[in-house]
Amino acid sequence: MANSRFEHDFLGERILPDDAYYGIQTLRALENFHITGIPINTEPIFVQALAYVKKAAALANRDLGVLDPAIADAIVRACERVASGEFDHQFLTDMIQGGAGTSVNMNANEVIANVALEIMGHPKGAYEFCHPNNHVNCSQSTNDAYPTAFRIALSNKLVGYSKTLEELADAFAAKGREFRNILKMGRTQLQDAVPMSMGDEFRAFATNLREELLRIDDSRNLIAEINMGATAIGTQVNAPAGYAELVTKYLREVTGLNLVLAGDLIEATYDTGAYVQLSGVLKRTAVKLSKICNDLRLLASGPRAGLFEINLPPLQPGSSIMPGKVNPVVPEVVNQTAFYVIGADLTVTMAAEAGQLQLNVMEPVISFALFTSISYMTNACRTLTEKCVNGITANAAHAEEQVRRSIGIVTQLNPIIGYETASEIAKEALRTGKSVHDIVVTERQLLTQKKWDEIYTFENMIRPAFIQ
Amino acid sequence: MANSRFEHDFLGERILPDDAYYGIQTLRALENFHITGIPINTEPIFVQALAYVKKAAALANRDLGVLDPAIADAIVRACERVASGEFDHQFLTDMIQGGAGTSVNMNANEVIANVALEIMGHPKGAYEFCHPNNHVNCSQSTNDAYPTAFRIALSNKLVGYSKTLEELADAFAAKGREFRNILKMGRTQLQDAVPMSMGDEFRAFATNLREELLRIDDSRNLIAEINMGATAIGTQVNAPAGYAELVTKYLREVTGLNLVLAGDLIEATYDTGAYVQLSGVLKRTAVKLSKICNDLRLLASGPRAGLFEINLPPLQPGSSIMPGKVNPVVPEVVNQTAFYVIGADLTVTMAAEAGQLQLNVMEPVISFALFTSISYMTNACRTLTEKCVNGITANAAHAEEQVRRSIGIVTQLNPIIGYETASEIAKEALRTGKSVHDIVVTERQLLTQKKWDEIYTFENMIRPAFIQ
Amino acid sequence: MANSRFEHDFLGERILPDDAYYGIQTLRALENFHITGIPINTEPIFVQALAYVKKAAALANRDLGVLDPAIADAIVRACERVASGEFDHQFLTDMIQGGAGTSVNMNANEVIANVALEIMGHPKGAYEFCHPNNHVNCSQSTNDAYPTAFRIALSNKLVGYSKTLEELADAFAAKGREFRNILKMGRTQLQDAVPMSMGDEFRAFATNLREELLRIDDSRNLIAEINMGATAIGTQVNAPAGYAELVTKYLREVTGLNLVLAGDLIEATYDTGAYVQLSGVLKRTAVKLSKICNDLRLLASGPRAGLFEINLPPLQPGSSIMPGKVNPVVPEVVNQTAFYVIGADLTVTMAAEAGQLQLNVMEPVISFALFTSISYMTNACRTLTEKCVNGITANAAHAEEQVRRSIGIVTQLNPIIGYETASEIAKEALRTGKSVHDIVVTERQLLTQKKWDEIYTFENMIRPAFIQ
Amino acid sequence: MANSRFEHDFLGERILPDDAYYGIQTLRALENFHITGIPINTEPIFVQALAYVKKAAALANRDLGVLDPAIADAIVRACERVASGEFDHQFLTDMIQGGAGTSVNMNANEVIANVALEIMGHPKGAYEFCHPNNHVNCSQSTNDAYPTAFRIALSNKLVGYSKTLEELADAFAAKGREFRNILKMGRTQLQDAVPMSMGDEFRAFATNLREELLRIDDSRNLIAEINMGATAIGTQVNAPAGYAELVTKYLREVTGLNLVLAGDLIEATYDTGAYVQLSGVLKRTAVKLSKICNDLRLLASGPRAGLFEINLPPLQPGSSIMPGKVNPVVPEVVNQTAFYVIGADLTVTMAAEAGQLQLNVMEPVISFALFTSISYMTNACRTLTEKCVNGITANAAHAEEQVRRSIGIVTQLNPIIGYETASEIAKEALRTGKSVHDIVVTERQLLTQKKWDEIYTFENMIRPAFIQ
Repeated sequence: MANSRFEHDFLGERILPDDAYYGIQTLRALENFHITGIPINTEPIFVQALAYVKKAAALANRDLGVLDPAIADAIVRACERVASGEFDHQFLTDMIQGGAGTSVNMNANEVIANVALEIMGHPKGAYEFCHPNNHVNCSQSTNDAYPTAFRIALSNKLVGYSKTLEELADAFAAKGREFRNILKMGRTQLQDAVPMSMGDEFRAFATNLREELLRIDDSRNLIAEINMGATAIGTQVNAPAGYAELVTKYLREVTGLNLVLAGDLIEATYDTGAYVQLSGVLKRTAVKLSKICNDLRLLASGPRAGLFEINLPPLQPGSSIMPGKVNPVVPEVVNQTAFYVIGADLTVTMAAEAGQLQLNVMEPVISFALFTSISYMTNACRTLTEKCVNGITANAAHAEEQVRRSIGIVTQLNPIIGYETASEIAKEALRTGKSVHDIVVTERQLLTQKKWDEIYTFENMIRPAFIQ
Repeated sequence: MANSRFEHDFLGERILPDDAYYGIQTLRALENFHITGIPINTEPIFVQALAYVKKAAALANRDLGVLDPAIADAIVRACERVASGEFDHQFLTDMIQGGAGTSVNMNANEVIANVALEIMGHPKGAYEFCHPNNHVNCSQSTNDAYPTAFRIALSNKLVGYSKTLEELADAFAAKGREFRNILKMGRTQLQDAVPMSMGDEFRAFATNLREELLRIDDSRNLIAEINMGATAIGTQVNAPAGYAELVTKYLREVTGLNLVLAGDLIEATYDTGAYVQLSGVLKRTAVKLSKICNDLRLLASGPRAGLFEINLPPLQPGSSIMPGKVNPVVPEVVNQTAFYVIGADLTVTMAAEAGQLQLNVMEPVISFALFTSISYMTNACRTLTEKCVNGITANAAHAEEQVRRSIGIVTQLNPIIGYETASEIAKEALRTGKSVHDIVVTERQLLTQKKWDEIYTFENMIRPAFIQ
Repeated sequence: MANSRFEHDFLGERILPDDAYYGIQTLRALENFHITGIPINTEPIFVQALAYVKKAAALANRDLGVLDPAIADAIVRACERVASGEFDHQFLTDMIQGGAGTSVNMNANEVIANVALEIMGHPKGAYEFCHPNNHVNCSQSTNDAYPTAFRIALSNKLVGYSKTLEELADAFAAKGREFRNILKMGRTQLQDAVPMSMGDEFRAFATNLREELLRIDDSRNLIAEINMGATAIGTQVNAPAGYAELVTKYLREVTGLNLVLAGDLIEATYDTGAYVQLSGVLKRTAVKLSKICNDLRLLASGPRAGLFEINLPPLQPGSSIMPGKVNPVVPEVVNQTAFYVIGADLTVTMAAEAGQLQLNVMEPVISFALFTSISYMTNACRTLTEKCVNGITANAAHAEEQVRRSIGIVTQLNPIIGYETASEIAKEALRTGKSVHDIVVTERQLLTQKKWDEIYTFENMIRPAFIQ
Repeated sequence: MANSRFEHDFLGERILPDDAYYGIQTLRALENFHITGIPINTEPIFVQALAYVKKAAALANRDLGVLDPAIADAIVRACERVASGEFDHQFLTDMIQGGAGTSVNMNANEVIANVALEIMGHPKGAYEFCHPNNHVNCSQSTNDAYPTAFRIALSNKLVGYSKTLEELADAFAAKGREFRNILKMGRTQLQDAVPMSMGDEFRAFATNLREELLRIDDSRNLIAEINMGATAIGTQVNAPAGYAELVTKYLREVTGLNLVLAGDLIEATYDTGAYVQLSGVLKRTAVKLSKICNDLRLLASGPRAGLFEINLPPLQPGSSIMPGKVNPVVPEVVNQTAFYVIGADLTVTMAAEAGQLQLNVMEPVISFALFTSISYMTNACRTLTEKCVNGITANAAHAEEQVRRSIGIVTQLNPIIGYETASEIAKEALRTGKSVHDIVVTERQLLTQKKWDEIYTFENMIRPAFIQ
């Protein structure tokens, strides 16, 4: 075969197409792992992070004299090209693989080695000049390079997610201001409770989501702890003295992230606590988003036999048979995304629990779960903001009418007539269909009309003051 | 100490109060396991099942000549007394223990041995006459006796659960008949869809739950496969030839259950598939119950600012502050029970996955999860039937009024005027607030009043015929 | 724009590229739903099932006189071409969408309408001759067409999965026969228990998995219940008399599946019980596979500081730093797949619980979870069979040596010397490092060498008989 | 009935035994809720917290002039007695109830009212002098009083848990020091990796768990945000101006906790984010504990056919049939506890997601899940420390022997002979059974014996330096 080359490892020899920058170990991974059909380059941010790790390692190795400067330089330049996305198509390993990330690490080592070889004027596969293991992977193990790259990728991915989530919170806050003076019935347990401002309801959604931004920051801090220099199982075997600190310093520069070297490298090499925590944060946000979307769908129910307090922007016909039906499709898709993320959190949990001894071999499925969760959540938040929240309108008159004829307004009389009398009035109103006003003012004359008017001003219903 | 005795095992000697029918190994378990504080006698049905297993084993051992008939007879009589509940207070091992059930099995072996000793006229602890291991546990291992007893207990417990669930389905079916001629708006995605009969809605709840009875039967069939005679890891070591079949036959007689000996005893000894399947069935029913309770709460929402189609029986004041408020407390408690059961299913899943090699050591937490799930579900179903469903009433006039003024009734015109024209009418109705009738008959004259009346009879709305 | 056409729905007008067989509603879905980036044509079996449903509906509608035979014929021919995969590239809706499947149903309706139009000699978009809603969707609603197609797709997909799983069970069974006469230590709680045959261990894996085939059959039976003819919320509105039965009959013919019409169409339209059950079965198998892979990894641990009973075929270098290391990459990838599937089961559970009133709007994420789970499990089983189990070899001498020097062999003396004496011997062996033989025969002379030899034959260790 | 009294609410009248300090609403709760059979007084810390809340409210109400000082004083004194545990037996409401905690709040209101009445010299039930709703619950709603008490109880409960967890970390750290100079084989993917110090392995367990203490602190900070003064749905209706801040101040004094008033009371009233976060932290620790216990069981496997690196203290005979068998019962019970906690986290997740509109009605099951999880985790940690970790011993000679004959030591030669040559040596060692030393020094003469001895010193194996 003209356009091909041979490569070998300790298990034997294999032929590779010459346009492949990856090598024999990646080839084996491509043969061995066919689970999701989704290659790791679906996350270019991960490929980039792998290149960052290799670049920082080459710089540190060069400084410490364990890597020839010429080779180091070629590796650095190769890493920059890989980080730019130029070789994403060479990162084909399936998202879920065995081997604790070795295949991903070797995919990076091999692609970078071959790019570096070309930079140095050698043909691909001439590993005597730049070897995937001896040079690109110098002073590293999959045990440190892989989780470090994964953490960098997560950290970068969270930036975009966080921004999108903040925009969603902003959108809710804007609606909170817009709906500030719309009076509506508050509900607990789906039962009429007391009146409230629709603006407060929407602002509370914003508050609820804005708290998540802080939790994402917490996660990014935990994720920033890396174990470069740990090498095999955290013993630092094969790494020169001072390497761990130096490579961490370079990695901070290369990534612009505030990365910190773990204090206990043995522990840091197997620990998946930061992933579990991050997954928990994603789940928490998913839970909140799902609750909010449930509320939006409920408030928009109707149009004639539902609550009909708000209108979601119509996006598409809602039925193949029911004419004119419009559905809350965006909240629905967000609910479903939330269920995906909650399921993915369980995947992370089980994978974390399954770690044994000095390494957690299940990290690839953790990466798959976290990458997809962050992507889907980002997409869901953006969709919710742009296709739904921004366009929500209120049915103010209907909402206020529901309050006016409600029984729940009786609560405001507690300090004046006491809980028990108020309860009797509520009960009678429900039984007879009469209004609270009629029973209190007309029938029982517990309040004068003047006092009633003083209590039940719009302002006092929407933002109640204490009146005794 | 006057009222005490010494017992020993290969780890040493311990003192026991003489009124303790349990012995040294149970004592150690009481010292070692303090997790839940819930003793196994919280499930008397489990204690009974342990006694059944020991009785059947004694009978088979006697027949096969490996147990002295006098000892066998004493054990059988002791088992009968234990099965009656007389010694439940001696079964104190914590629900969650280590040791794969050995402590529970030894608790049974020791109590039965000492009861048998008393029957034979010996003092407690005189194990030379009837030994917990050599005689009561003869031809057995925890590996077979424990899961067999567990399965018998589950099977018996499912009978009561199934009956309670059936009564709930019956209650819904009765409401289905009662509400047969109440017209209401059907809803998909919380949006008005097309009219329907409220009776159909409630009958569907019955249908939905009745399917679960078949799934429970499936589970009981899987649970009925036992591994008596497997002894240690299924090798049948220490069990005489023919014992497995004989003890299974006796156990069928003693329990009245249709128990079957597993075909592969090695597999049956570690397999937890039947528990996972049963837990899945409980979860499925929990999912359905939760959905139904969500619906009940939604349909009962209001009274003034909700759907208000049905009324749940008021059981207790619903608020410490809001007078007259009544909440759907029973559906709420059923929802919460469902969440417990779904969580417990995850516990079972993880425990099942954690089994290693020839035994699943996590069976005690599986038993804890399944016993509590079945108990709570039984309680929840009974409460739902008695405290809620039986007393539901309908707001028929309100429900029908919602249909009359709905837009969703336009669907029935599809075969006559086509989906697109119908869509335009729906859109106009929503925009202007006009009724479908006004637009179709008065404004656009697409239908004569006569044709309209033919289509929109009560009968045709509640159970539509095809009219072109 | 030369190569484009206009289409409209009740929300307005949109332009479509003329090579698009899909129409305006699909276009809106493509704009609205960007969550996973994975289009529904990733499951061609689902596209095919949609075409089957539309074909059967056209045939039934033709027979019942509600669809012009010429149009029906064109639709049937269009469906056949779509079912063949010819138009898979037109099914681009994101796997997770809002709208309870309406976008998927409309994607099918529109593509089929336009293919039918071309067959009839009309340009795309000339819906007056064949309309997506009025003709292709005639007598249907998304509420019945979507879940029916989903169930057909699931049923067909399970066939391949089941076959692959059976091949895995066969592979284990073959190893069971191959390893029949290899003696090894059985273990409970990771502690040495009693000797056993390695063949029995592998045969038990086969037994364990073969049970799953029956559970898959159960699922296919539940999945086979369809609700065609239910139309909107199960009321059968807009469907002519006799349609439900007739379309079901045609669908049985078209698919070759044993489909059954649900007895309660209101219930069947919202019920997701069959999906929960199927997901539970997938989870159960995942739990078992994960346990088996844990065992394989454990038995293959070493090579020098582990159990080292078996060798998994080496597939790729196992480390970027540790020379010669080979990892159990295939069991690892199967474990991870199992964790995915268990997480996906939670997604299904939550989606099922979230159904409200007359429809479960979360079905798309259920379909996403189930389709990916079945695919990944199929891939995992195939990989496990071909890349791992078939090539497993045993370290027979090492395994037998572990038995010979074990303490666990003392169990076989129970019937002769009693549990307590045997316990003392075991304790002494552990404390002193002596062999059981030395203590029993030489030191304590509890057995003659002859009796010892009678008991500890190879045959009696690997498949113990009862010796008293 | 001589010893009884009548009480009424707006649903009617009921008779109460006169020794009941609780009243009619608690009685109704006792009738309505029979799910777990576990009363809330199983958590005395929760009863105490309820009393704290009522005390602080009385003080604030008194200061603000909305509660008569004499009544306020009696309530305060009653609260102090309730907080002391004197009336725990009166808190009998089932842990899982409907009503979003109203029954628990009313149970507290009623008991405190009746104790206060007695203090004031009135008979029980003379609510005109001190009313459960008007006085004890003054300026409160279940919507604020219940979650505030719950949060206080959680915060206090976490103190004991945290301390117990820290003791466990300390125990591991002590073993880390004790085992500092024991050489053992490190393992990744259950395959021999490179040598390491057993002390490092145990210290890493300590590190791993110590991180959890920080996460618990995070949780306590989130939990410290309360919504007192929110009253119904956060509107502050019925609460006098300044009350929210004042009651929070008093509550800080009464509890000694650093409680903070939420900034958005509408949001704080329905938000369950802090519970989800706390549950996630408990789950994370459970995941870690389960992983550690898996490791302990693995390292203690044997005694003859396992890794046998460490010995766990023997606590009880491990089998009813296998003499002398001792099992790792404590790690096993901790694993099972972890599975419970992970399941309970799912319960919390689903309950949180199910909140609707202005309140999450599922808080009782959240409280049940969190209280049991914290209790069980505390018990599990204590058991693990006292019954297991403290007594672990190492089989140092065996562990070192495994290293000496391993192939994994070849990794240290990478910098000298390169990854590929090292791989060949490893492969040959595995194939032939030869030692690495023999191949490297004797056969291939790649290293002199002197260089070998320099590299493979004990110190360099247990804590490798970089040697080129």
